[in-house]
Amino acid sequence: MSYDLIIKNGTVVTASETYQGDLAIEKGKIAAIGRNFKSNGSKVVDAKGLYILPGGIDVHTHLDMPFGGTTTADDFVSGTTAAVCGGTTSIIDFAIQKKGEDLRSGLDVWHGKAQGKSAVDYSFHMIVTDLPEKRLKEMDKLVGEGVTTFKLFMAYPGVFMSDDATIFRALQRTGENGGMVCMHAENGGVIDVLVQKALAEGKTEPKYHALTRPMSAEAEATRRALALAEMAGVPIYIVHLSAGDAMEEVRRARERGVAAYAETCPQYLYLSYEDYEKPNFEGAKYVMSPPLRPRGNEERLWKGLTNNWLQVVSTDHCSFCFHGRGGKPGKELGRNDFSKIPNGAPGIETRMLLLWDAVQTKKLTPNRFVEITSAAPAKLFGLYPKKGTITPGADADLVLLDPKRKHTISAKTHHMNVDYNPYEGKTVQGTIWDVFLRGIKMVEKGKFVGRTTSGSFIKRKSR
Amino acid sequence: MSYDLIIKNGTVVTASETYQGDLAIEKGKIAAIGRNFKSNGSKVVDAKGLYILPGGIDVHTHLDMPFGGTTTADDFVSGTTAAVCGGTTSIIDFAIQKKGEDLRSGLDVWHGKAQGKSAVDYSFHMIVTDLPEKRLKEMDKLVGEGVTTFKLFMAYPGVFMSDDATIFRALQRTGENGGMVCMHAENGGVIDVLVQKALAEGKTEPKYHALTRPMSAEAEATRRALALAEMAGVPIYIVHLSAGDAMEEVRRARERGVAAYAETCPQYLYLSYEDYEKPNFEGAKYVMSPPLRPRGNEERLWKGLTNNWLQVVSTDHCSFCFHGRGGKPGKELGRNDFSKIPNGAPGIETRMLLLWDAVQTKKLTPNRFVEITSAAPAKLFGLYPKKGTITPGADADLVLLDPKRKHTISAKTHHMNVDYNPYEGKTVQGTIWDVFLRGIKMVEKGKFVGRTTSGSFIKRKSR
Amino acid sequence: MSYDLIIKNGTVVTASETYQGDLAIEKGKIAAIGRNFKSNGSKVVDAKGLYILPGGIDVHTHLDMPFGGTTTADDFVSGTTAAVCGGTTSIIDFAIQKKGEDLRSGLDVWHGKAQGKSAVDYSFHMIVTDLPEKRLKEMDKLVGEGVTTFKLFMAYPGVFMSDDATIFRALQRTGENGGMVCMHAENGGVIDVLVQKALAEGKTEPKYHALTRPMSAEAEATRRALALAEMAGVPIYIVHLSAGDAMEEVRRARERGVAAYAETCPQYLYLSYEDYEKPNFEGAKYVMSPPLRPRGNEERLWKGLTNNWLQVVSTDHCSFCFHGRGGKPGKELGRNDFSKIPNGAPGIETRMLLLWDAVQTKKLTPNRFVEITSAAPAKLFGLYPKKGTITPGADADLVLLDPKRKHTISAKTHHMNVDYNPYEGKTVQGTIWDVFLRGIKMVEKGKFVGRTTSGSFIKRKSR
Amino acid sequence: MSYDLIIKNGTVVTASETYQGDLAIEKGKIAAIGRNFKSNGSKVVDAKGLYILPGGIDVHTHLDMPFGGTTTADDFVSGTTAAVCGGTTSIIDFAIQKKGEDLRSGLDVWHGKAQGKSAVDYSFHMIVTDLPEKRLKEMDKLVGEGVTTFKLFMAYPGVFMSDDATIFRALQRTGENGGMVCMHAENGGVIDVLVQKALAEGKTEPKYHALTRPMSAEAEATRRALALAEMAGVPIYIVHLSAGDAMEEVRRARERGVAAYAETCPQYLYLSYEDYEKPNFEGAKYVMSPPLRPRGNEERLWKGLTNNWLQVVSTDHCSFCFHGRGGKPGKELGRNDFSKIPNGAPGIETRMLLLWDAVQTKKLTPNRFVEITSAAPAKLFGLYPKKGTITPGADADLVLLDPKRKHTISAKTHHMNVDYNPYEGKTVQGTIWDVFLRGIKMVEKGKFVGRTTSGSFIKRKSR
Repeated sequence: MSYDLIIKNGTVVTASETYQGDLAIEKGKIAAIGRNFKSNGSKVVDAKGLYILPGGIDVHTHLDMPFGGTTTADDFVSGTTAAVCGGTTSIIDFAIQKKGEDLRSGLDVWHGKAQGKSAVDYSFHMIVTDLPEKRLKEMDKLVGEGVTTFKLFMAYPGVFMSDDATIFRALQRTGENGGMVCMHAENGGVIDVLVQKALAEGKTEPKYHALTRPMSAEAEATRRALALAEMAGVPIYIVHLSAGDAMEEVRRARERGVAAYAETCPQYLYLSYEDYEKPNFEGAKYVMSPPLRPRGNEERLWKGLTNNWLQVVSTDHCSFCFHGRGGKPGKELGRNDFSKIPNGAPGIETRMLLLWDAVQTKKLTPNRFVEITSAAPAKLFGLYPKKGTITPGADADLVLLDPKRKHTISAKTHHMNVDYNPYEGKTVQGTIWDVFLRGIKMVEKGKFVGRTTSGSFIKRKSR
Repeated sequence: MSYDLIIKNGTVVTASETYQGDLAIEKGKIAAIGRNFKSNGSKVVDAKGLYILPGGIDVHTHLDMPFGGTTTADDFVSGTTAAVCGGTTSIIDFAIQKKGEDLRSGLDVWHGKAQGKSAVDYSFHMIVTDLPEKRLKEMDKLVGEGVTTFKLFMAYPGVFMSDDATIFRALQRTGENGGMVCMHAENGGVIDVLVQKALAEGKTEPKYHALTRPMSAEAEATRRALALAEMAGVPIYIVHLSAGDAMEEVRRARERGVAAYAETCPQYLYLSYEDYEKPNFEGAKYVMSPPLRPRGNEERLWKGLTNNWLQVVSTDHCSFCFHGRGGKPGKELGRNDFSKIPNGAPGIETRMLLLWDAVQTKKLTPNRFVEITSAAPAKLFGLYPKKGTITPGADADLVLLDPKRKHTISAKTHHMNVDYNPYEGKTVQGTIWDVFLRGIKMVEKGKFVGRTTSGSFIKRKSR
Repeated sequence: MSYDLIIKNGTVVTASETYQGDLAIEKGKIAAIGRNFKSNGSKVVDAKGLYILPGGIDVHTHLDMPFGGTTTADDFVSGTTAAVCGGTTSIIDFAIQKKGEDLRSGLDVWHGKAQGKSAVDYSFHMIVTDLPEKRLKEMDKLVGEGVTTFKLFMAYPGVFMSDDATIFRALQRTGENGGMVCMHAENGGVIDVLVQKALAEGKTEPKYHALTRPMSAEAEATRRALALAEMAGVPIYIVHLSAGDAMEEVRRARERGVAAYAETCPQYLYLSYEDYEKPNFEGAKYVMSPPLRPRGNEERLWKGLTNNWLQVVSTDHCSFCFHGRGGKPGKELGRNDFSKIPNGAPGIETRMLLLWDAVQTKKLTPNRFVEITSAAPAKLFGLYPKKGTITPGADADLVLLDPKRKHTISAKTHHMNVDYNPYEGKTVQGTIWDVFLRGIKMVEKGKFVGRTTSGSFIKRKSR
Repeated sequence: MSYDLIIKNGTVVTASETYQGDLAIEKGKIAAIGRNFKSNGSKVVDAKGLYILPGGIDVHTHLDMPFGGTTTADDFVSGTTAAVCGGTTSIIDFAIQKKGEDLRSGLDVWHGKAQGKSAVDYSFHMIVTDLPEKRLKEMDKLVGEGVTTFKLFMAYPGVFMSDDATIFRALQRTGENGGMVCMHAENGGVIDVLVQKALAEGKTEPKYHALTRPMSAEAEATRRALALAEMAGVPIYIVHLSAGDAMEEVRRARERGVAAYAETCPQYLYLSYEDYEKPNFEGAKYVMSPPLRPRGNEERLWKGLTNNWLQVVSTDHCSFCFHGRGGKPGKELGRNDFSKIPNGAPGIETRMLLLWDAVQTKKLTPNRFVEITSAAPAKLFGLYPKKGTITPGADADLVLLDPKRKHTISAKTHHMNVDYNPYEGKTVQGTIWDVFLRGIKMVEKGKFVGRTTSGSFIKRKSR
């Protein structure tokens, strides 16, 4: 029998299995899994010595996003090129509702930013900033169009923050329409008081960004979000969880039966507060919300990943250059006032390798790696079984990873359009060797060989 | 040696001791404690067979308070008469700031309501409803005048509710002025959504008062209040805690080092949700906030009292007649809409005996009884060692309790100015026999023999 | 391409995946997984409407075992026939060391009992009853032969019980030889005192079996076993965990990093203490150790299965007739003395359907069903990836389950050689339709069509 | 009125009160408590600037005790002189049953050791080493004589260790006779295996004493002891608790309603494992069981004292000279084998000041200090209200402590008959100034002025 493509002799890894096998691909999908497949004229890739993994799914990216007087460094073209080079074949980006406008209009803007400009498949979450009762039905419509998730904020009063009654109404609505709320959980009221106090006292350096956003402010808001979901009787997803105490709240909620889920990000697993104290304003590179946490916290998160107290690792990729570039001001905006530093850091390209490194150090099993980077995101966000696994009928989104080859992370070589890398110089064990998107070769021997038009919008399923 | 009064042969109980002894009183204070005191012309009371307890301190009462189109049934005259007959010799009532006015004005109104009309010593907490930054310094002034505690609300949006930033600023201020915040911890935003929904669905009976105020709404707000206090680095006191899950949050906060305290009330220890389902609108008698909780919850609270996860039992006495009386509408206001039922229930007279009953059933030791009804409130609220114990120099506020004599609670015999009693017909083991306020006999053999002018304002100490 | 067998159109379920697919089988193993496989002369089975599951693995059975003056009702012939009819294709039975003899001799006896008499693949755990230091090296030898697990007892003083020093030495040894200890965790010392006391007081009915084996005795021993493993730095597996409090200890140990695992059994999930109070000595049918627990406990165990606080469900199949049969006395042995009732109950045939019923009621997902009945046992006990999953190269041990067809459990129809069934009359949703062992059809449309010689000894891998 | 003695103007501290007052003493007892007592011919001591505390009660001492080929350095004469100089006015020492002999005989030996040789009041616990069923009734008799507590061991197999069945029977018996079991909770079986292994590997230095007695061995045994008490339905008291994890078990047991109590000792609060690594065999000075724990553990114990997870601080005073003296070999016995080092350290004299130092550093309140050093021990061990407090009728056992004066601990100045002090050179804030035993001045301005015959045997009350 002849197939479009056969990948032979690799070690296939899914969320629960690890086995030697051949994969046959036809029309962009997995057609058969077996051993010793004959070529019969099919194109053949030899994966001997390589792991074959489901393509990574990054459910938290911000591309081409305006923020605080500038715009993110990466648009869909550069961001998704970096993604696929890093082994990620699907992303979910955030579309933003403008205050006073309808959800739909905001979504349309993002469709425009992405269409025909993406190297990976993509979908959107909808950021909700203005939700009077009359707009609740707009949520239903989006769910029907495959935009099934809505991000609300407990931080940024006056900008993004929703009050508890609004959040609660949104949660109740997802109980009816099958959508899900994603929550930025930090207590914005407290944080604003602390920020004003710090600035009034002349504390303007980057480290005060972290010192005015205490872990308790995150743990409190997380607990509150979970309680609201519990009272509404619906699932909830906590984004970019950074504090061990917040994780503890997720764990407790799950144990009492709440359908509570949370993601953390590589930066919270590898970096820490100390980075803010770097001289020469270098600390600004790490200004993101929530901030990096004191050393010791990261071990709690690793433990949470092992014990499934956390379910997903995404990136919260939101890149700003350190020095402005191409008319977009950078981190320097906040040189004299930490509260003006654009919030966010690049990471869309480094997630998979940073986590695979944890497989090498036995912190994660290969199966758990697949679960947190691909299978769980796919299942939680309505992409499964099209994405997130390697079974007959699934999209042939595949990463061939070479576990023997080392890779050194650097802004000099990365594909993200940003002038620094938070992990500059770090060497990890493992290299993203080949990447396929629906059977199309996008990366070959570590080089981008695809097109930035290959990605399609994915209409997601509701619960 | 001659004293004003000697009380002989009783069993003296304090928060840690139980012993046979004689008490000598001079100028309203304990002058000496011993055995076999000679009369030498002193007046003598024989307390043989009686327990001698420090006078009860009820730190949560609402007397002469306007609420929702009516006024509480008890003013200071009737309320404090009932208090002293029930073994309580000090209360802390709540003065209310009017929106847009200063704290001071609200306090003055309450001074006016109480002065010369109280049978027990009294102080005030200040209810804060409107706290822009400029008013923070008003708090300092009140602390200096002995009104050291400030109640804020996380419930009743648009009426009493403060947002998190305001609460946080108030907490920070108490860190500077030595005051303390008392918190009504229920998530008002969620509750309002649930109330509107219930009413829209035609659910108007009293039980919906409880069903729209879930335990989670209290647990969440409690957790939040504790987190705010923790971030401000100050103590906090949770009022009328009713839900076991809220208590669990207090316990956890205490274990991580927060100076967190909480009171519960007899109604949450003895009554339960089932009372709301009584026919003929009887359920309205139990409408209070937080509401009575499902059966099983009360055992958790008792366990909390035993293990010191709860520190105080107060009453939240806030009485409304079932049928209107004297121009004051009663519970009937809400016959067609549970949200219009005046919130509150009478209890100032029954607290001590209801809790002593738990001594009889071995749920509490006599010492723990004294601790939660008198010693702990005195220490937490700046009344100690003047109040709350029996040591040389303390005020001779004393209760002589007869443990052999039974007492049946009834609206027919109680001194509260209200036409029902939530514990109607309940017989407890123990009777408040004699009560002394600063050595003045107020109650003799269960009868009120004092005057409603004996009580004085107590200027409390700050931390 | 031609295969020995193709199973088409079923819904394949593994521990993490659910998908429509065809399976091709060659030489007893999974050769390929795909869709729309052409027959090309292969034998074809149509699985339309059926679930295709990895064959069940029951890691806790007692076949042909002498106990307390009798022998179990099922030997390998009847027991494994029942197993395969119930969807179980591999078992691990317990070989017993005789006191004073070497491990090897005991193992040989069990090899003799099983060889050529088993309808399913089988392996052994070694029950250790006598382990002076000199015998420790015998453990190493067994591990080398694929008998990698050793059961020790904290109960039955004077019969099976090992003291803590012995257990600790055995645990340490598994740290060197890659084996693992399986523990019967009940405090035998306490239980014996309670049994003697009960008998002395004339308490002889079956229910006293349960009343003299309190949950605390199991929780304590579990905690102790886990601590010994923790101090030895090795994994441990708790068998037949029945008490929620014992589970809590496993959970806590796992959270502090101990490689702790536990199985429970269907009887603890479905039955309860009340069964002991059945009249006419019927309670004896449920006499097993640990005993059935009070109602409410089973919900804790279900929660544990959901949250992975428990990893495996086995049967502890150990059947005795109620009335003696074939020269083997039955439960009647203890009619006048509960302590003489043979301990154990039948279950090898009913495990899979009882648990699938929980899939129907949404207590378990299909994937979790596979995990606890097959995948996790295979991984923990060195059978994976030969057993426990459906991937290329795995043994074609497959169960075709019809989810639409109901099944009623009854001693009249079951294949176990025992005159009662603890679940008599219970109807479950789902029927074991076809079963394949290494590609050999053993069960067809619910009827046994195989041979009791098809099963082979499986040499297990050590850690 | 005239009294034997009046102590004026001190700050009286009890477990719950702190107040300025005068104490009048008559016939060795507190006669009256007041203010401004007139002398009227009474002897007067001025306590201005001093704290007046209830005399310390040390419920865990080993005086004149044979152990491992030697005898403790302190007998009753030297030991109780040191005690009273350190502010302790009552002790409970351990009498030892000889194997094969009756309890009574062992008790008589200890009566002989103490009678007429004690500067403080004393009682005994009975160490039980051999408890067949027939001896259980001997326990009843001792309870009747005021020796109400029985110490059993889970450590030292072959010497002191009882098995679980024996312990359980003893616990059950105290449920009938009103006594209480005190438990040495370490898993002796595991420890012996580890000790043998260490010695076989040539590990002979003092530090291996600690490394072969892991915290888990204590936590496990503690959990087991608590479970046995729970199943017997009786209270239990854990002696010399050292490990935070063991404390956690006590806390959990208390929360589920077990009458569980535990003491720790100053050495576990102030010293740590590092002391074992001192050169020149100095580590031997700290060899005791349980051993000192790794740094960090002590903070958990302090937290436990604050939160009442621990109830008592005793000393486990068991002194051996470093160098032999007077025919008694010392720590040197184990120079080549840590397992031969006599177990124990001196502490009877330093407990009160070391803990008062924690009052100075705000770790403890003065009231909590009194509770853990005197009131709680008195209540738990049947000495209250004769001992443990300052109320009319109580023994006038009083310590006048000068909080302004510093004290430096040193073997050069201490009264214990031992050639080293574990706290050598440590300076604490506070000095034991005067001590009274039943009104008799034993210590004056820090000097011993009493007689070593003043102490009497105290017959203790049972529960």
